[in-house]
Amino acid sequence: MTEPDALTELRERLREFAAERDWVQFHSPKNLAIALSVEAAELLVHFQWVTEEASQRLPAGQMVQVREELADVLLYLVRLADRLGVDLVAAANDKIEVNARKYPSGEVRGSSRKYTER
Amino acid sequence: MTEPDALTELRERLREFAAERDWVQFHSPKNLAIALSVEAAELLVHFQWVTEEASQRLPAGQMVQVREELADVLLYLVRLADRLGVDLVAAANDKIEVNARKYPSGEVRGSSRKYTER
Amino acid sequence: MTEPDALTELRERLREFAAERDWVQFHSPKNLAIALSVEAAELLVHFQWVTEEASQRLPAGQMVQVREELADVLLYLVRLADRLGVDLVAAANDKIEVNARKYPSGEVRGSSRKYTER
Amino acid sequence: MTEPDALTELRERLREFAAERDWVQFHSPKNLAIALSVEAAELLVHFQWVTEEASQRLPAGQMVQVREELADVLLYLVRLADRLGVDLVAAANDKIEVNARKYPSGEVRGSSRKYTER
Repeated sequence: MTEPDALTELRERLREFAAERDWVQFHSPKNLAIALSVEAAELLVHFQWVTEEASQRLPAGQMVQVREELADVLLYLVRLADRLGVDLVAAANDKIEVNARKYPSGEVRGSSRKYTER
Repeated sequence: MTEPDALTELRERLREFAAERDWVQFHSPKNLAIALSVEAAELLVHFQWVTEEASQRLPAGQMVQVREELADVLLYLVRLADRLGVDLVAAANDKIEVNARKYPSGEVRGSSRKYTER
Repeated sequence: MTEPDALTELRERLREFAAERDWVQFHSPKNLAIALSVEAAELLVHFQWVTEEASQRLPAGQMVQVREELADVLLYLVRLADRLGVDLVAAANDKIEVNARKYPSGEVRGSSRKYTER
Repeated sequence: MTEPDALTELRERLREFAAERDWVQFHSPKNLAIALSVEAAELLVHFQWVTEEASQRLPAGQMVQVREELADVLLYLVRLADRLGVDLVAAANDKIEVNARKYPSGEVRGSSRKYTER
Protein backbone atom coordinates (compact mmCIF):
# COMPACT_ATOMS: atom_id res chain seq x y z
CA MET A 1 0.00 0.00 0.00
CA THR A 2 1.36 3.38 -0.97
CA GLU A 3 1.27 6.30 1.40
CA PRO A 4 -0.54 9.31 0.00
CA ASP A 5 1.63 12.16 -1.19
CA ALA A 6 1.96 15.23 1.06
CA LEU A 7 0.14 17.47 -1.42
CA THR A 8 -2.67 14.93 -1.78
CA GLU A 9 -3.08 14.94 1.98
CA LEU A 10 -3.15 18.73 2.06
CA ARG A 11 -5.77 18.75 -0.69
CA GLU A 12 -7.96 16.38 1.31
CA ARG A 13 -7.58 18.39 4.52
CA LEU A 14 -8.54 21.58 2.70
CA ARG A 15 -11.59 19.94 1.12
CA GLU A 16 -12.83 18.85 4.54
CA PHE A 17 -11.99 22.21 6.07
CA ALA A 18 -14.10 24.09 3.54
CA ALA A 19 -16.95 21.57 3.61
CA GLU A 20 -17.22 21.59 7.40
CA ARG A 21 -17.54 25.38 7.40
CA ASP A 22 -19.82 25.61 4.37
CA TRP A 23 -17.18 27.74 2.67
CA VAL A 24 -17.15 25.94 -0.67
CA GLN A 25 -19.54 28.60 -1.98
CA PHE A 26 -16.78 31.23 -1.63
CA HIS A 27 -14.12 29.10 -3.28
CA SER A 28 -14.68 29.91 -6.92
CA PRO A 29 -11.44 29.69 -8.92
CA LYS A 30 -11.68 33.47 -9.44
CA ASN A 31 -11.78 34.16 -5.69
CA LEU A 32 -9.05 31.65 -4.93
CA ALA A 33 -6.80 33.16 -7.61
CA ILE A 34 -7.29 36.57 -5.96
CA ALA A 35 -6.52 35.11 -2.52
CA LEU A 36 -3.37 33.44 -3.86
CA SER A 37 -2.17 36.74 -5.31
CA VAL A 38 -2.90 38.56 -2.05
CA GLU A 39 -0.95 35.98 -0.03
CA ALA A 40 2.01 36.20 -2.40
CA ALA A 41 2.01 39.97 -1.81
CA GLU A 42 1.82 39.51 1.96
CA LEU A 43 4.93 37.37 1.65
CA LEU A 44 6.60 40.03 -0.50
CA VAL A 45 5.96 42.66 2.21
CA HIS A 46 8.77 41.10 4.24
CA PHE A 47 11.27 41.68 1.45
CA GLN A 48 10.26 45.07 0.15
CA TRP A 49 12.78 47.32 1.90
CA VAL A 50 15.61 44.87 2.58
CA THR A 51 18.58 44.39 0.33
CA GLU A 52 18.99 41.14 -1.59
CA GLU A 53 21.81 40.23 0.74
CA ALA A 54 19.81 40.92 3.89
CA SER A 55 16.94 38.87 2.47
CA GLN A 56 19.14 35.78 2.94
CA ARG A 57 19.31 36.27 6.71
CA LEU A 58 16.05 37.65 8.00
CA PRO A 59 15.68 38.01 11.78
CA ALA A 60 14.16 34.92 13.47
CA GLY A 61 10.97 36.77 14.45
CA GLN A 62 10.35 37.75 10.87
CA MET A 63 11.08 34.22 9.64
CA VAL A 64 8.15 32.98 11.75
CA GLN A 65 5.86 35.27 9.79
CA VAL A 66 7.49 34.45 6.46
CA ARG A 67 6.96 30.74 7.13
CA GLU A 68 3.25 31.40 7.72
CA GLU A 69 2.94 33.37 4.50
CA LEU A 70 4.70 30.61 2.55
CA ALA A 71 2.16 28.19 4.04
CA ASP A 72 -0.76 30.42 3.03
CA VAL A 73 0.48 30.57 -0.56
CA LEU A 74 0.76 26.77 -0.70
CA LEU A 75 -2.68 26.26 0.84
CA TYR A 76 -4.45 28.52 -1.66
CA LEU A 77 -2.42 27.06 -4.51
CA VAL A 78 -3.40 23.50 -3.59
CA ARG A 79 -7.04 24.51 -3.12
CA LEU A 80 -7.19 26.39 -6.44
CA ALA A 81 -5.56 23.51 -8.34
CA ASP A 82 -8.07 21.15 -6.75
CA ARG A 83 -11.03 23.30 -7.81
CA LEU A 84 -9.63 23.39 -11.35
CA GLY A 85 -8.83 19.68 -11.45
CA VAL A 86 -5.11 20.26 -12.04
CA ASP A 87 -2.42 17.87 -10.77
CA LEU A 88 0.10 20.38 -9.43
CA VAL A 89 3.11 18.08 -9.24
CA ALA A 90 2.62 16.78 -12.78
CA ALA A 91 2.17 20.34 -14.03
CA ALA A 92 5.37 21.46 -12.26
CA ASN A 93 7.41 18.58 -13.65
CA ASP A 94 6.11 19.30 -17.15
CA LYS A 95 7.08 22.95 -16.73
CA ILE A 96 10.62 22.05 -15.69
CA GLU A 97 10.93 20.09 -18.96
CA VAL A 98 9.68 23.09 -20.93
CA ASN A 99 12.16 25.37 -19.17
CA ALA A 100 15.02 22.93 -19.74
CA ARG A 101 14.36 23.04 -23.49
CA LYS A 102 13.94 26.83 -23.46
CA TYR A 103 17.14 27.51 -21.53
CA PRO A 104 19.68 24.78 -22.41
CA SER A 105 22.42 24.89 -19.79
CA GLY A 106 25.17 24.84 -22.42
CA GLU A 107 23.83 27.99 -24.05
CA VAL A 108 22.73 30.17 -21.17
CA ARG A 109 25.43 29.31 -18.64
CA GLY A 110 27.21 32.45 -17.57
CA SER A 111 25.24 34.67 -19.92
CA SER A 112 22.06 34.23 -17.90
CA ARG A 113 20.09 35.50 -20.84
CA LYS A 114 16.74 35.07 -19.12
CA TYR A 115 17.73 37.48 -16.43
CA THR A 116 19.40 40.20 -18.39
CA GLU A 117 17.32 40.40 -21.54
CA ARG A 118 13.62 40.74 -21.98
CA MET B 1 13.36 2.54 1.94
CA THR B 2 11.00 5.47 1.55
CA GLU B 3 10.41 7.18 -1.73
CA PRO B 4 11.18 10.86 -1.67
CA ASP B 5 8.19 13.14 -1.49
CA ALA B 6 7.09 14.93 -4.67
CA LEU B 7 8.01 18.37 -3.29
CA THR B 8 11.42 17.11 -2.19
CA GLU B 9 12.02 15.87 -5.72
CA LEU B 10 10.95 19.20 -7.18
CA ARG B 11 13.27 21.01 -4.78
CA GLU B 12 16.19 18.84 -5.91
CA ARG B 13 15.40 19.32 -9.60
CA LEU B 14 15.27 23.10 -9.12
CA ARG B 15 18.58 23.14 -7.24
CA GLU B 16 20.25 21.32 -10.08
CA PHE B 17 18.54 23.46 -12.68
CA ALA B 18 19.85 26.68 -11.13
CA ALA B 19 23.33 25.30 -10.45
CA GLU B 20 23.80 24.01 -14.01
CA ARG B 21 22.95 27.44 -15.39
CA ASP B 22 24.88 29.45 -12.80
CA TRP B 23 21.63 31.16 -11.85
CA VAL B 24 21.95 30.77 -8.07
CA GLN B 25 23.36 34.32 -7.98
CA PHE B 26 19.96 35.66 -9.09
CA HIS B 27 17.98 33.59 -6.62
CA SER B 28 18.05 35.78 -3.54
CA PRO B 29 14.90 35.35 -1.43
CA LYS B 30 13.97 38.94 -2.34
CA ASN B 31 14.09 38.21 -6.07
CA LEU B 32 12.29 34.89 -5.70
CA ALA B 33 9.53 36.53 -3.64
CA ILE B 34 9.08 39.09 -6.43
CA ALA B 35 8.97 36.32 -9.05
CA LEU B 36 6.39 34.39 -7.03
CA SER B 37 4.17 37.46 -6.80
CA VAL B 38 4.52 38.11 -10.53
CA GLU B 39 3.57 34.51 -11.37
CA ALA B 40 0.53 34.68 -9.07
CA ALA B 41 -0.57 37.78 -10.98
CA GLU B 42 -0.02 36.07 -14.33
CA LEU B 43 -2.37 33.36 -13.09
CA LEU B 44 -4.88 35.99 -11.96
CA VAL B 45 -4.91 37.51 -15.47
CA HIS B 46 -6.99 34.54 -16.62
CA PHE B 47 -9.71 35.31 -14.10
CA GLN B 48 -9.85 39.10 -14.21
CA TRP B 49 -12.82 39.68 -16.50
CA VAL B 50 -14.72 36.42 -16.09
CA THR B 51 -17.55 35.93 -13.63
CA GLU B 52 -17.08 33.64 -10.65
CA GLU B 53 -19.34 31.12 -12.32
CA ALA B 54 -17.47 31.20 -15.62
CA SER B 55 -14.20 30.78 -13.72
CA GLN B 56 -15.33 27.22 -12.90
CA ARG B 57 -15.42 26.22 -16.56
CA LEU B 58 -12.63 27.96 -18.45
CA PRO B 59 -12.19 27.01 -22.12
CA ALA B 60 -9.75 24.13 -22.66
CA GLY B 61 -7.21 26.36 -24.42
CA GLN B 62 -7.10 28.69 -21.49
CA MET B 63 -6.81 25.82 -19.01
CA VAL B 64 -3.53 24.83 -20.70
CA GLN B 65 -2.16 28.26 -19.84
CA VAL B 66 -3.64 28.26 -16.36
CA ARG B 67 -1.99 24.90 -15.66
CA GLU B 68 1.39 26.38 -16.67
CA GLU B 69 0.90 29.38 -14.41
CA LEU B 70 -0.06 27.14 -11.48
CA ALA B 71 3.16 25.23 -12.14
CA ASP B 72 5.22 28.43 -12.18
CA VAL B 73 3.79 29.50 -8.82
CA LEU B 74 4.66 26.12 -7.28
CA LEU B 75 8.18 26.14 -8.73
CA TYR B 76 9.03 29.58 -7.34
CA LEU B 77 7.38 28.72 -4.03
CA VAL B 78 9.44 25.54 -3.67
CA ARG B 79 12.61 27.35 -4.68
CA LEU B 80 12.01 30.26 -2.28
CA ALA B 81 11.20 27.92 0.63
CA ASP B 82 14.40 26.01 -0.13
CA ARG B 83 16.52 29.18 -0.10
CA LEU B 84 14.95 30.13 3.24
CA GLY B 85 15.29 26.65 4.74
CA VAL B 86 11.55 26.27 5.29
CA ASP B 87 9.77 22.89 5.12
CA LEU B 88 6.69 23.86 3.11
CA VAL B 89 4.54 20.85 3.94
CA ALA B 90 5.19 21.13 7.69
CA ALA B 91 4.46 24.89 7.53
CA ALA B 92 1.19 24.26 5.64
CA ASN B 93 0.03 21.61 8.10
CA ASP B 94 0.85 23.90 11.03
CA LYS B 95 -1.15 26.68 9.35
CA ILE B 96 -4.19 24.45 8.93
CA GLU B 97 -4.08 23.82 12.70
CA VAL B 98 -3.92 27.57 13.37
CA ASN B 99 -6.86 28.18 11.03
CA ALA B 100 -8.88 25.37 12.63
CA ARG B 101 -8.53 27.05 16.04
CA LYS B 102 -9.26 30.50 14.58
CA TYR B 103 -12.39 29.41 12.73
CA PRO B 104 -14.04 26.58 14.71
CA SER B 105 -16.51 24.89 12.39
CA GLY B 106 -19.25 24.95 15.03
CA GLU B 107 -19.07 28.74 15.27
CA VAL B 108 -18.48 29.92 11.74
CA ARG B 109 -20.64 27.40 9.89
CA GLY B 110 -23.21 29.21 7.77
CA SER B 111 -22.20 32.63 9.04
CA SER B 112 -18.92 32.50 7.13
CA ARG B 113 -17.60 35.26 9.32
CA LYS B 114 -14.20 35.28 7.71
CA TYR B 115 -15.70 36.15 4.39
CA THR B 116 -18.26 38.74 5.34
CA GLU B 117 -16.49 40.68 8.08
CA ARG B 118 -13.11 42.22 8.13
CA MET C 1 0.69 82.30 -13.71
CA THR C 2 -0.49 78.72 -13.89
CA GLU C 3 -1.28 76.74 -10.78
CA PRO C 4 0.72 73.55 -10.49
CA ASP C 5 -1.13 70.38 -11.34
CA ALA C 6 -2.29 68.16 -8.46
CA LEU C 7 0.10 65.34 -9.39
CA THR C 8 3.00 67.78 -9.63
CA GLU C 9 2.21 68.99 -6.13
CA LEU C 10 2.05 65.42 -4.83
CA ARG C 11 5.38 64.68 -6.48
CA GLU C 12 6.97 67.66 -4.74
CA ARG C 13 5.48 66.76 -1.36
CA LEU C 14 6.80 63.20 -1.67
CA ARG C 15 10.28 64.42 -2.63
CA GLU C 16 10.41 66.58 0.47
CA PHE C 17 8.97 63.84 2.63
CA ALA C 18 11.68 61.37 1.62
CA ALA C 19 14.49 63.94 1.78
CA GLU C 20 13.54 65.12 5.29
CA ARG C 21 13.64 61.55 6.57
CA ASP C 22 16.75 60.50 4.65
CA TRP C 23 14.68 57.79 2.97
CA VAL C 24 15.80 58.45 -0.60
CA GLN C 25 18.34 55.64 -0.17
CA PHE C 26 15.47 53.12 0.09
CA HIS C 27 13.59 54.49 -2.89
CA SER C 28 15.22 52.60 -5.73
CA PRO C 29 12.79 52.00 -8.60
CA LYS C 30 12.98 48.27 -7.79
CA ASN C 31 11.87 48.80 -4.20
CA LEU C 32 9.17 51.29 -5.17
CA ALA C 33 7.79 48.89 -7.80
CA ILE C 34 7.57 46.20 -5.09
CA ALA C 35 5.83 48.63 -2.72
CA LEU C 36 3.35 49.62 -5.43
CA SER C 37 2.50 45.99 -6.07
CA VAL C 38 2.08 45.32 -2.35
CA GLU C 39 -0.27 48.30 -1.96
CA ALA C 40 -2.34 47.19 -4.95
CA ALA C 41 -2.73 43.80 -3.24
CA GLU C 42 -3.71 45.44 0.06
CA LEU C 43 -6.46 47.20 -1.87
CA LEU C 44 -7.49 43.92 -3.49
CA VAL C 45 -7.89 42.31 -0.05
CA HIS C 46 -11.10 44.29 0.39
CA PHE C 47 -12.62 42.73 -2.71
CA GLN C 48 -11.43 39.15 -2.48
CA TRP C 49 -14.49 37.44 -1.00
CA VAL C 50 -17.25 39.84 -2.04
CA THR C 51 -19.35 39.41 -5.15
CA GLU C 52 -18.96 41.86 -8.02
CA GLU C 53 -22.31 43.32 -7.11
CA ALA C 54 -21.45 43.76 -3.43
CA SER C 55 -18.18 45.42 -4.46
CA GLN C 56 -20.24 48.38 -5.71
CA ARG C 57 -21.62 49.09 -2.24
CA LEU C 58 -19.00 48.36 0.38
CA PRO C 59 -19.86 49.23 4.00
CA ALA C 60 -18.81 52.76 5.01
CA GLY C 61 -16.19 51.50 7.47
CA GLN C 62 -14.51 49.48 4.79
CA MET C 63 -14.64 52.38 2.33
CA VAL C 64 -12.46 54.39 4.75
CA GLN C 65 -9.79 51.71 4.45
CA VAL C 66 -10.24 51.35 0.70
CA ARG C 67 -9.77 55.11 0.29
CA GLU C 68 -6.47 54.87 2.20
CA GLU C 69 -5.26 52.00 0.04
CA LEU C 70 -6.16 53.91 -3.14
CA ALA C 71 -4.10 56.79 -1.76
CA ASP C 72 -1.13 54.52 -1.05
CA VAL C 73 -1.19 53.19 -4.59
CA LEU C 74 -1.21 56.73 -6.01
CA LEU C 75 1.60 57.88 -3.71
CA TYR C 76 3.93 55.04 -4.67
CA LEU C 77 2.99 55.41 -8.32
CA VAL C 78 3.82 59.14 -8.32
CA ARG C 79 7.06 58.50 -6.43
CA LEU C 80 8.16 55.69 -8.76
CA ALA C 81 7.35 57.73 -11.88
CA ASP C 82 9.35 60.61 -10.42
CA ARG C 83 12.38 58.39 -9.76
CA LEU C 84 12.17 57.12 -13.33
CA GLY C 85 11.62 60.56 -14.86
CA VAL C 86 8.27 59.63 -16.38
CA ASP C 87 5.44 62.15 -16.83
CA LEU C 88 2.49 60.05 -15.65
CA VAL C 89 -0.29 62.15 -17.15
CA ALA C 90 1.35 62.29 -20.57
CA ALA C 91 1.97 58.54 -20.42
CA ALA C 92 -1.66 57.86 -19.49
CA ASN C 93 -3.01 60.05 -22.28
CA ASP C 94 -0.72 58.34 -24.78
CA LYS C 95 -1.95 54.96 -23.57
CA ILE C 96 -5.60 55.96 -24.03
CA GLU C 97 -4.75 56.76 -27.67
CA VAL C 98 -3.11 53.37 -28.10
CA ASN C 99 -6.14 51.63 -26.58
CA ALA C 100 -8.55 53.62 -28.76
CA ARG C 101 -6.75 52.36 -31.89
CA LYS C 102 -6.56 48.81 -30.52
CA TYR C 103 -10.25 48.62 -29.59
CA PRO C 104 -12.22 50.79 -32.05
CA SER C 105 -15.65 51.39 -30.51
CA GLY C 106 -17.42 50.48 -33.77
CA GLU C 107 -15.81 47.05 -33.81
CA VAL C 108 -15.79 45.94 -30.21
CA ARG C 109 -19.11 47.42 -29.07
CA GLY C 110 -21.31 44.67 -27.68
CA SER C 111 -18.82 41.94 -28.49
CA SER C 112 -16.44 43.12 -25.79
CA ARG C 113 -13.73 41.13 -27.43
CA LYS C 114 -11.06 42.21 -24.96
CA TYR C 115 -12.97 40.71 -22.10
CA THR C 116 -14.12 37.43 -23.57
CA GLU C 117 -11.16 36.37 -25.66
CA ARG C 118 -7.55 36.11 -24.80
CA MET D 1 -12.78 79.84 -15.36
CA THR D 2 -10.58 77.11 -14.01
CA GLU D 3 -9.06 74.44 -16.19
CA PRO D 4 -9.97 70.92 -15.19
CA ASP D 5 -7.30 69.00 -13.36
CA ALA D 6 -5.35 66.36 -15.30
CA LEU D 7 -6.82 63.49 -13.27
CA THR D 8 -10.34 64.85 -13.76
CA GLU D 9 -9.74 64.89 -17.49
CA LEU D 10 -8.45 61.32 -17.42
CA ARG D 11 -11.49 60.25 -15.43
CA GLU D 12 -13.79 61.77 -18.04
CA ARG D 13 -11.91 60.20 -20.93
CA LEU D 14 -12.12 56.78 -19.28
CA ARG D 15 -15.84 57.16 -18.62
CA GLU D 16 -16.46 57.92 -22.28
CA PHE D 17 -14.14 55.15 -23.38
CA ALA D 18 -16.03 52.52 -21.39
CA ALA D 19 -19.48 53.86 -22.31
CA GLU D 20 -18.73 53.94 -26.05
CA ARG D 21 -17.67 50.30 -25.94
CA ASP D 22 -20.42 49.12 -23.60
CA TRP D 23 -17.72 47.98 -21.18
CA VAL D 24 -19.19 49.50 -18.03
CA GLN D 25 -20.73 46.09 -17.27
CA PHE D 26 -17.23 44.65 -16.78
CA HIS D 27 -16.01 47.51 -14.59
CA SER D 28 -17.17 46.39 -11.16
CA PRO D 29 -14.83 47.62 -8.42
CA LYS D 30 -13.85 44.00 -7.81
CA ASN D 31 -12.75 43.49 -11.41
CA LEU D 32 -10.98 46.85 -11.57
CA ALA D 33 -9.10 46.09 -8.33
CA ILE D 34 -7.93 42.81 -9.89
CA ALA D 35 -6.86 44.62 -13.07
CA LEU D 36 -4.95 47.22 -11.04
CA SER D 37 -3.08 44.50 -9.18
CA VAL D 38 -2.28 42.69 -12.43
CA GLU D 39 -0.91 45.88 -14.01
CA ALA D 40 1.23 46.61 -10.94
CA ALA D 41 2.71 43.11 -11.33
CA GLU D 42 3.34 43.66 -15.05
CA LEU D 43 5.31 46.74 -14.05
CA LEU D 44 7.21 44.75 -11.41
CA VAL D 45 8.25 42.20 -14.06
CA HIS D 46 10.73 44.75 -15.38
CA PHE D 47 12.49 44.95 -12.01
CA GLN D 48 12.44 41.34 -10.88
CA TRP D 49 15.94 40.22 -11.80
CA VAL D 50 17.80 43.53 -11.87
CA THR D 51 19.73 44.92 -8.94
CA GLU D 52 18.46 48.01 -7.14
CA GLU D 53 21.27 49.97 -8.72
CA ALA D 54 20.51 48.76 -12.24
CA SER D 55 16.84 49.61 -11.69
CA GLN D 56 17.86 53.28 -11.73
CA ARG D 57 19.14 53.07 -15.28
CA LEU D 58 17.01 50.69 -17.31
CA PRO D 59 17.79 50.41 -21.04
CA ALA D 60 15.78 52.85 -23.21
CA GLY D 61 13.81 50.06 -24.86
CA GLN D 62 12.67 48.76 -21.53
CA MET D 63 11.78 52.25 -20.32
CA VAL D 64 9.25 52.48 -23.17
CA GLN D 65 7.49 49.42 -21.76
CA VAL D 66 7.82 50.60 -18.17
CA ARG D 67 6.20 53.93 -19.12
CA GLU D 68 3.25 52.02 -20.62
CA GLU D 69 2.83 49.91 -17.50
CA LEU D 70 2.94 53.02 -15.28
CA ALA D 71 0.19 54.45 -17.50
CA ASP D 72 -1.91 51.30 -17.16
CA VAL D 73 -1.67 51.42 -13.38
CA LEU D 74 -2.79 55.06 -13.36
CA LEU D 75 -5.67 54.39 -15.74
CA TYR D 76 -7.10 51.54 -13.68
CA LEU D 77 -6.53 53.47 -10.47
CA VAL D 78 -8.44 56.51 -11.79
CA ARG D 79 -11.22 54.29 -13.13
CA LEU D 80 -11.56 52.34 -9.87
CA ALA D 81 -11.59 55.50 -7.74
CA ASP D 82 -14.28 56.90 -10.04
CA ARG D 83 -16.46 53.80 -9.68
CA LEU D 84 -16.07 54.03 -5.90
CA GLY D 85 -16.68 57.79 -5.77
CA VAL D 86 -13.28 58.52 -4.22
CA ASP D 87 -11.38 61.77 -4.86
CA LEU D 88 -7.88 60.37 -5.39
CA VAL D 89 -5.95 63.60 -4.91
CA ALA D 90 -7.75 64.48 -1.68
CA ALA D 91 -7.21 60.92 -0.41
CA ALA D 92 -3.50 61.09 -1.26
CA ASN D 93 -3.03 64.43 0.47
CA ASP D 94 -4.84 63.13 3.55
CA LYS D 95 -2.59 60.08 3.57
CA ILE D 96 0.56 62.22 3.44
CA GLU D 97 -0.69 64.00 6.58
CA VAL D 98 -1.25 60.64 8.31
CA ASN D 99 2.23 59.48 7.33
CA ALA D 100 3.80 62.75 8.53
CA ARG D 101 2.30 62.20 11.99
CA LYS D 102 3.26 58.53 12.00
CA TYR D 103 6.86 59.13 10.98
CA PRO D 104 7.96 62.52 12.40
CA SER D 105 11.12 63.52 10.56
CA GLY D 106 12.89 64.42 13.81
CA GLU D 107 12.42 60.91 15.17
CA VAL D 108 12.93 58.64 12.21
CA ARG D 109 15.69 60.55 10.42
CA GLY D 110 18.68 58.31 9.96
CA SER D 111 17.12 55.40 11.82
CA SER D 112 14.62 54.78 9.03
CA ARG D 113 12.53 52.77 11.42
CA LYS D 114 9.82 52.05 8.90
CA TYR D 115 12.26 50.29 6.66
CA THR D 116 14.25 48.25 9.12
CA GLU D 117 11.62 47.18 11.66
CA ARG D 118 8.32 45.55 11.16
